[in-house]
Amino acid sequence: MSAAHEAYLAERYDRHLGELVEYLRIPSISTLPQHAADIGRCADWVAAHLESIGIRDVEQLETGGNPIVFGELLEAGPAAPTLLVYGHYDVQPADPLELWRTPPFEPTIRDGQIYARGATDNKGPLFVYLKALETLIAVDGGLACNVKVLIEGEEELRADNLDTFMENERERLRCDALVISDSAQYAKGVPSIPLSLRGMAALQLRLETASTDLHSGMYGGVAPNALDALVRLLATLRDERGVVAVEGFYDGVEPPAAEEVRRWEELPFDPEELREQIGAKLLIGEDGEHGPLERMWKRPTLDLHGVWGGFSGEGIKTVIPREAHAKLSCRLVPHQEPQPLLDRLVEHLERHCPAEASLTIEWTLPGATPIEMSRDDPLVRAAEAALAATYGRPPLFFRSGWSVPVAEIAKRRLGVDPLLLGFGLPEDGAHAPNEQFALESFELGTRTMIEFFSRCADSAHA
Amino acid sequence: MSAAHEAYLAERYDRHLGELVEYLRIPSISTLPQHAADIGRCADWVAAHLESIGIRDVEQLETGGNPIVFGELLEAGPAAPTLLVYGHYDVQPADPLELWRTPPFEPTIRDGQIYARGATDNKGPLFVYLKALETLIAVDGGLACNVKVLIEGEEELRADNLDTFMENERERLRCDALVISDSAQYAKGVPSIPLSLRGMAALQLRLETASTDLHSGMYGGVAPNALDALVRLLATLRDERGVVAVEGFYDGVEPPAAEEVRRWEELPFDPEELREQIGAKLLIGEDGEHGPLERMWKRPTLDLHGVWGGFSGEGIKTVIPREAHAKLSCRLVPHQEPQPLLDRLVEHLERHCPAEASLTIEWTLPGATPIEMSRDDPLVRAAEAALAATYGRPPLFFRSGWSVPVAEIAKRRLGVDPLLLGFGLPEDGAHAPNEQFALESFELGTRTMIEFFSRCADSAHA
Repeated sequence: MSAAHEAYLAERYDRHLGELVEYLRIPSISTLPQHAADIGRCADWVAAHLESIGIRDVEQLETGGNPIVFGELLEAGPAAPTLLVYGHYDVQPADPLELWRTPPFEPTIRDGQIYARGATDNKGPLFVYLKALETLIAVDGGLACNVKVLIEGEEELRADNLDTFMENERERLRCDALVISDSAQYAKGVPSIPLSLRGMAALQLRLETASTDLHSGMYGGVAPNALDALVRLLATLRDERGVVAVEGFYDGVEPPAAEEVRRWEELPFDPEELREQIGAKLLIGEDGEHGPLERMWKRPTLDLHGVWGGFSGEGIKTVIPREAHAKLSCRLVPHQEPQPLLDRLVEHLERHCPAEASLTIEWTLPGATPIEMSRDDPLVRAAEAALAATYGRPPLFFRSGWSVPVAEIAKRRLGVDPLLLGFGLPEDGAHAPNEQFALESFELGTRTMIEFFSRCADSAHA
Repeated sequence: MSAAHEAYLAERYDRHLGELVEYLRIPSISTLPQHAADIGRCADWVAAHLESIGIRDVEQLETGGNPIVFGELLEAGPAAPTLLVYGHYDVQPADPLELWRTPPFEPTIRDGQIYARGATDNKGPLFVYLKALETLIAVDGGLACNVKVLIEGEEELRADNLDTFMENERERLRCDALVISDSAQYAKGVPSIPLSLRGMAALQLRLETASTDLHSGMYGGVAPNALDALVRLLATLRDERGVVAVEGFYDGVEPPAAEEVRRWEELPFDPEELREQIGAKLLIGEDGEHGPLERMWKRPTLDLHGVWGGFSGEGIKTVIPREAHAKLSCRLVPHQEPQPLLDRLVEHLERHCPAEASLTIEWTLPGATPIEMSRDDPLVRAAEAALAATYGRPPLFFRSGWSVPVAEIAKRRLGVDPLLLGFGLPEDGAHAPNEQFALESFELGTRTMIEFFSRCADSAHA
């Protein structure tokens, strides 16, 4: 990074931070229908911002759902590589609101952090990319590579519209590689690149036991209780260690190579520190057989995300509820596919459904296939060099436990490999109350991306 | 009942129904703080109504919570018996609202039923008493017995304020017997008197597993899940038949006498009809060992009333919830006491709490001790005669599965026996959506209570 780049960033630091605050202020929650207008407003904001930093031909493209904001800067010529740069402008719901120290859509800076829903997932990390592009365009008059910018509005919602869009727009999206801002560093101050992503599959179910809610005084002792049936059904899914009890759930899952386990042992990781960080009494899982890193990165999981039924207000309502609901999802690892796993899960639920209850699978979401990347990819090498130049030490390579559907879709639809280069941190609280993004991540991320975009011209076609 | 009484009721039928509609329109939900003003409005309405029908010295008495509306008519002289007449003006919450055919607080008459929250529990049955008193006062110029009318506003909430009130106001409440409108007939067209009530004990619990909600992609496989811990804990409470698995839960519970079982066999009861009525696939419980009537009347039960945690909105939020909650209650039978049962329940919960979770008992409610009444009580005989005169057939005697805390409190604090004489029906849907009260119950109930108040002068001191 040149002195001119440095000066540009320093002069505009406050203005850039102000823009990020403006962006975070928009409650672009894609999973809640009442925020549809905010989604539209956010797409407009992103499109205007892309134009303002010098991206050309900015458009909002139809997807059948929330629009994709798309723009290009293809002036590096046909010999230079073309990168498809990805982010999303939608965010998760903010509830439970009462656990936020400051309101989720009133971005607040304290102790070197900016707090807001979307701060780290993905508005902050995406903004880092945009500020790097802005700096290069403003200072150098252009980029050494070609870029196509794709910012979607349904990352937290569903992947099928993006899938269809990528299938239909192969020509427009033609590129040499996908660079994904929606990712995190291994740890604060530790430059790093993840080389795999878990897949995801989810469903929502309903149990019904009667045609109406019933009074527990009158009917208690004979009337089936939907919540009672539900807890007995859900309790069959995992054992007391958190090991999933669905038949065939772990079929085909391979242990990590010995060489990889050796590298994991070199990572700065202390399970006891992790336990303390999340405030847990103990870590769960297949302990003894599989270490915590393997469980987070290379083992599939099943988690309940929501259970509800009956009365949850203040005090007591002595009702025998007629219906009860649950949402759950699985994380998948290589050699697992979402749909077959959902089939096994549904089969398990049907087999273990208590006799007094009727089971309805309200929906299934075969969210993402797991993917793995090669450490020898030239783009991975460019990222490695950019991180090393910025942080002053070579990056670590690790795996990532979460799922980024776009990586898998782009591989399948466009035939390109993904690079995950994001500047979130594990402690940022993605999807949780008091989500945050460190100002240090903002600064280091912007510098890294300036280095990266400058280097990838040489590397992407290597 | 005289021709003059008949004529009075016939003339005023529409006006009386209009008054009931007005009463039902007030959303006097005692368990929801946002309805505090409605509770006050409802107490005012009841007080004004008591005055309008000729009850004297009507007051709203402080309880530390919602006021008790109290009035008297003591003109029958010291030789005549004094009845304490009980009802409550508060109602249950109306959710889930989407299951109501017409709004819960817009009373609607269709097919001979009046639909509204509180229609049968307890506004309709109490109103029957008030119309009987009004008729006797208007037509006869007074009553053959003395009455004290006590209408409380926390029946659906808690019994401790009523308990303290009865302890402090023994003098004001001095009476020969308690007559409770908050009860139901055995079946439509079958006059009947319940001779026992189950007791009740409830609690709410919380499990916590982490200091914040966590992302299931990042932490899935190591982070404990509060919902997962909760379903495993709750699943230990009952077995697949609905038999409670808490140690000592059934201790001291006695089987019904052979003679009583023989009388049950004469009752119009068909378990298959009950199963169809509630829309269940099967009836649960200790089948084979204890028949359905015994399970509803003479066996204790445990039911989950609410379970919640995580995300219950539309779509998916891949959160590992840090906390999860449940509400549950038990019905008790003779030889069981609420507090010792709660102690056993809490002990069970503590013993079975998954190691990764912290258990908090958020509150306990030792609601009511079970009670039994004698068939030979003179007041029971007066009710028997009043029902026989109105329905043209002798009433059945049965047990009631639910709990009426006032019966137990009055026995303990005032030393009087309770009579349950209510005109709800099992199919009225107390506590459920589309709660209703039959116009036929309204008419037969009013006539029965006119007969009863006329007869109890002879019986209560027998």
